[in-house]
Amino acid sequence: MTGKLTTAEVQARLANLNQQAGGAWRVEDDKLVREFRFKGFAEAFGFMAEVALHAEKADHHPEWQNVYNRVAVQLVTHDAGGITEKDFALAMRMESAAAHRSK
Amino acid sequence: MTGKLTTAEVQARLANLNQQAGGAWRVEDDKLVREFRFKGFAEAFGFMAEVALHAEKADHHPEWQNVYNRVAVQLVTHDAGGITEKDFALAMRMESAAAHRSK
Repeated sequence: MTGKLTTAEVQARLANLNQQAGGAWRVEDDKLVREFRFKGFAEAFGFMAEVALHAEKADHHPEWQNVYNRVAVQLVTHDAGGITEKDFALAMRMESAAAHRSK
Repeated sequence: MTGKLTTAEVQARLANLNQQAGGAWRVEDDKLVREFRFKGFAEAFGFMAEVALHAEKADHHPEWQNVYNRVAVQLVTHDAGGITEKDFALAMRMESAAAHRSK
């Protein structure tokens, strides 16, 4: 199992992630969070479908909310009691899935 | 455009809906809400994918949250400022999509 990252480890990985994500990710309530916005519902749900396949394959799933063109996500590893490498890996997958969709 | 239903109209339709849904739907903050639970993430996301296709076709989309096997939904017609027939139609679609998936 992937272990919970220390605060310093989270901050280092967050800085790295945000270099690619334009500072859009933050830590809130011990979860890695971001809101994505797309052109419309089809783009937003297409993003969710792509992420869902990755999540199921990795057996690591997001908490997320969708309202029309917006998808808010919160990533945490419940088994580890905090943010782990799995959450950063899923965040990177989300960046990749969002990058090629119309905003 | 479908008009906002009166409180009495909403209650009548809610009673009808709940006959099929075992009382699972309620009105909260002027929205029609329910939480669905499935066997796992694949079943939950399969439900969301089926509903998403209907929603896009009808151009009427849910607000929803997914955490692993749970999907919480809130239905409201923002243009009409409340609950309309469109919301009850979407709720019925959700019942149908949930019915044939493993709980």
